[in-house]
Amino acid sequence: MQRGTHRQWQELLRLLRAGSAVEIRQLLGRLPGNVAGRLVGRLRRRDQQRVLSTLHPQDAADLIEEIPEAQAADLMEQLPPGEAAAILEEMPSNEQADLISALPEGGAEAILAEMDAAEAADVRRLAGYSANVAGGIMITEYLAYAESATIGEVIADLREHAAAYIDYSVQYLYIVSEDRRLVGVLPLRDLILAPSHGRVTAYMIAKPIALEDQTPVEDLLPTFDQRSFLAIPVVDAAGRLTGVVRRHDVEEALGDRAEGDYLKSQGIIGGEELRTMPLFQRCRRRLTWLSANIVLNLISASVIALYQDTLSAVIALAVFLPIVSDMSGCSGNQAVAVSMREMALGLVEPAEAFRVWAQEALVGILNGLVLGVLLGLVAWIWQGNLPLGLVIGGALALNTVLAASIGGTLPLLLKRLGADPALASGPILTTVTDLCGFVLVLGLASATLHRIAAG
Amino acid sequence: MQRGTHRQWQELLRLLRAGSAVEIRQLLGRLPGNVAGRLVGRLRRRDQQRVLSTLHPQDAADLIEEIPEAQAADLMEQLPPGEAAAILEEMPSNEQADLISALPEGGAEAILAEMDAAEAADVRRLAGYSANVAGGIMITEYLAYAESATIGEVIADLREHAAAYIDYSVQYLYIVSEDRRLVGVLPLRDLILAPSHGRVTAYMIAKPIALEDQTPVEDLLPTFDQRSFLAIPVVDAAGRLTGVVRRHDVEEALGDRAEGDYLKSQGIIGGEELRTMPLFQRCRRRLTWLSANIVLNLISASVIALYQDTLSAVIALAVFLPIVSDMSGCSGNQAVAVSMREMALGLVEPAEAFRVWAQEALVGILNGLVLGVLLGLVAWIWQGNLPLGLVIGGALALNTVLAASIGGTLPLLLKRLGADPALASGPILTTVTDLCGFVLVLGLASATLHRIAAG
Repeated sequence: MQRGTHRQWQELLRLLRAGSAVEIRQLLGRLPGNVAGRLVGRLRRRDQQRVLSTLHPQDAADLIEEIPEAQAADLMEQLPPGEAAAILEEMPSNEQADLISALPEGGAEAILAEMDAAEAADVRRLAGYSANVAGGIMITEYLAYAESATIGEVIADLREHAAAYIDYSVQYLYIVSEDRRLVGVLPLRDLILAPSHGRVTAYMIAKPIALEDQTPVEDLLPTFDQRSFLAIPVVDAAGRLTGVVRRHDVEEALGDRAEGDYLKSQGIIGGEELRTMPLFQRCRRRLTWLSANIVLNLISASVIALYQDTLSAVIALAVFLPIVSDMSGCSGNQAVAVSMREMALGLVEPAEAFRVWAQEALVGILNGLVLGVLLGLVAWIWQGNLPLGLVIGGALALNTVLAASIGGTLPLLLKRLGADPALASGPILTTVTDLCGFVLVLGLASATLHRIAAG
Repeated sequence: MQRGTHRQWQELLRLLRAGSAVEIRQLLGRLPGNVAGRLVGRLRRRDQQRVLSTLHPQDAADLIEEIPEAQAADLMEQLPPGEAAAILEEMPSNEQADLISALPEGGAEAILAEMDAAEAADVRRLAGYSANVAGGIMITEYLAYAESATIGEVIADLREHAAAYIDYSVQYLYIVSEDRRLVGVLPLRDLILAPSHGRVTAYMIAKPIALEDQTPVEDLLPTFDQRSFLAIPVVDAAGRLTGVVRRHDVEEALGDRAEGDYLKSQGIIGGEELRTMPLFQRCRRRLTWLSANIVLNLISASVIALYQDTLSAVIALAVFLPIVSDMSGCSGNQAVAVSMREMALGLVEPAEAFRVWAQEALVGILNGLVLGVLLGLVAWIWQGNLPLGLVIGGALALNTVLAASIGGTLPLLLKRLGADPALASGPILTTVTDLCGFVLVLGLASATLHRIAAG
């Protein structure tokens, strides 16, 4: 924590213990939004609620937007529904929908019931979309005008409602037919250049590029890149304007997904985990993944039990078993990471598993040779046993080929099967490479036991 | 590959073997930019060069922007400098700088020498910034007007240069003093509402929010969030306007960083790896990380050699050694992932290592108890040996506490020391947890050998 932040943190804690609501409000009002968010994000849940209820709804909404979503949803659920609704009404539409989606159904309905009916309907509609499609990240704060409007009428409307439109995305104005089908886009800068008696239809870009609400998020970025658009309108299956997707929301969604993949690959499942969450919830979620892993580990390690005689004869093998299994796991995870990245970039697709398998097998052969020779030499020199060195080196080399080719292919196969590759690739890969590593080391050692034991 | 893409891919390969430049250009011209990018991204390097030299510079630039950066830099380096410069001139300033930064110095200078001198100077200036600060992601396509300008003059300039400004970020106009210090921002929508004879200084927002060029990227997003800005001006230490950072570039930079962290945590170092890269380069980069890992593995596994007598006496221990070390590694990596995430969100900072240590130790104690009892029961029942079960369960429980508390703290300490936590946390963590796991299992077993061997 920077020195300044630390002082403010101490001050906030002091006010929560002994201060008044007014003092808390003043302290947070003096801080930049992100700093206030960080400080409140670190508080215990009960203190966070106290802070929220001392603030005006607009300030509470600003604060909530700075807090990680899992925490924010948790907080909203604990507030009286009326208070939560007042805060929610001050937030942008896509963040409203995200928060409502993160709440359990009962809690969400209780809050929506307290909101303005039209706004609640909008939130319900947005929350109905999957977070992985255009509809799931669009906003509804856009300006649409009728085909019959003139440039002068549009400018007058902008002038009149300037205050209300302050948070709107107004670099483009949308022109719609009577049944709300999107017929054109009028960039703000073209509005400037047009005479005020002109019809909007004469100056708009007709048949504009629009996204269907069910377009997957990963397919959106190229459309933005093509013409450096900042925002693109979204239409439903009937061509009716339903929202606007902004470029930075797409970037944010893709960034969140990359972070989610990283967390899942390291065994944090069920959404993000924050240390302010209740201890038992954190333990339970981590244990879910760990206990699946312990079963997989037992399966692979049980192979060792089959070779107890070999191990007893050459106890030095026990030193190298974990090395071979760990190193192969590392080689395999490298291949998994490259496949995950290439899938995210759209450079490879599930049907190409065979090409990837061949490419990774090549890398595996070369790296397996280098690593096998290295570890084999270590085993030979350390234990003074050449046959042992050959067994260890050979097992690592073979298992590296296996690990790289399985690691590269597995994410593609899992995606094809509809499973989540970020979550499942690691555990499956290490189970297979551990199992094969143990079988290779102990199998090769058994087959050449008379030489090794004599070596 | 989707069916359609597959046909186009076959067609592109056929044209590269037997077609003309015109046919290749026509095929790619018919495809959406992202599809063309994907197809070309999959080609071998030589074929990619052939495709690029058949295209007009503007089309080649569009294509290059759709190709992953490492590949794009590689391609630009292979092209004749004049051709590369012509393509570069068609790209936005921040992408120019990124590409130039990704090139070796000699290659970059050869291309810059062929460019328009003023544009080359801009690229050099941008490329001089680290990618982790505001200056490293800003663009120079912004519109600045003198303090003395009138609204009418600005509108006339916009009208006159509408075509040239088409790719500019013009939702805000910047007002600068004679020595280019930023004095105000004029939103385009305020321009519409102002009378044409007025002075820009009368309608601009004076003393606007600006970012210093050396502000770290992770500190930028909150500033954008506070007022839903789409772009914020960047000034140098003297307050002179040097560029504009757009919100989506910040999101993109943060997303790239999350992806980079994921890759590094899985052992892909030195930037992204694509399977179109040369085989030896891919192997070398992966081996750099693997060979460091093999040394760490040898250190931890050498502990096993110290306890060979214990292992000989109770060979079943060899089955549980890899399980204890792997499970502890998993628990530790979960804690690493949560710390990485909390650091990215600004919820925790290096000075708070002790608080994190305590929080993770708690999780470790609870999860260690559960996992220890589970594995202990398995060991007891499977081997029919209660003392063995107690040793294995106890070792796993203790090592889980250790792994979680080290895993949570390590990224914070590494960051404080200026090391890269995404890269170094994993290998250091697993070395320590392996070592401690082996010592715990074998040490506890040695201490109670008479009971276990009798059990």
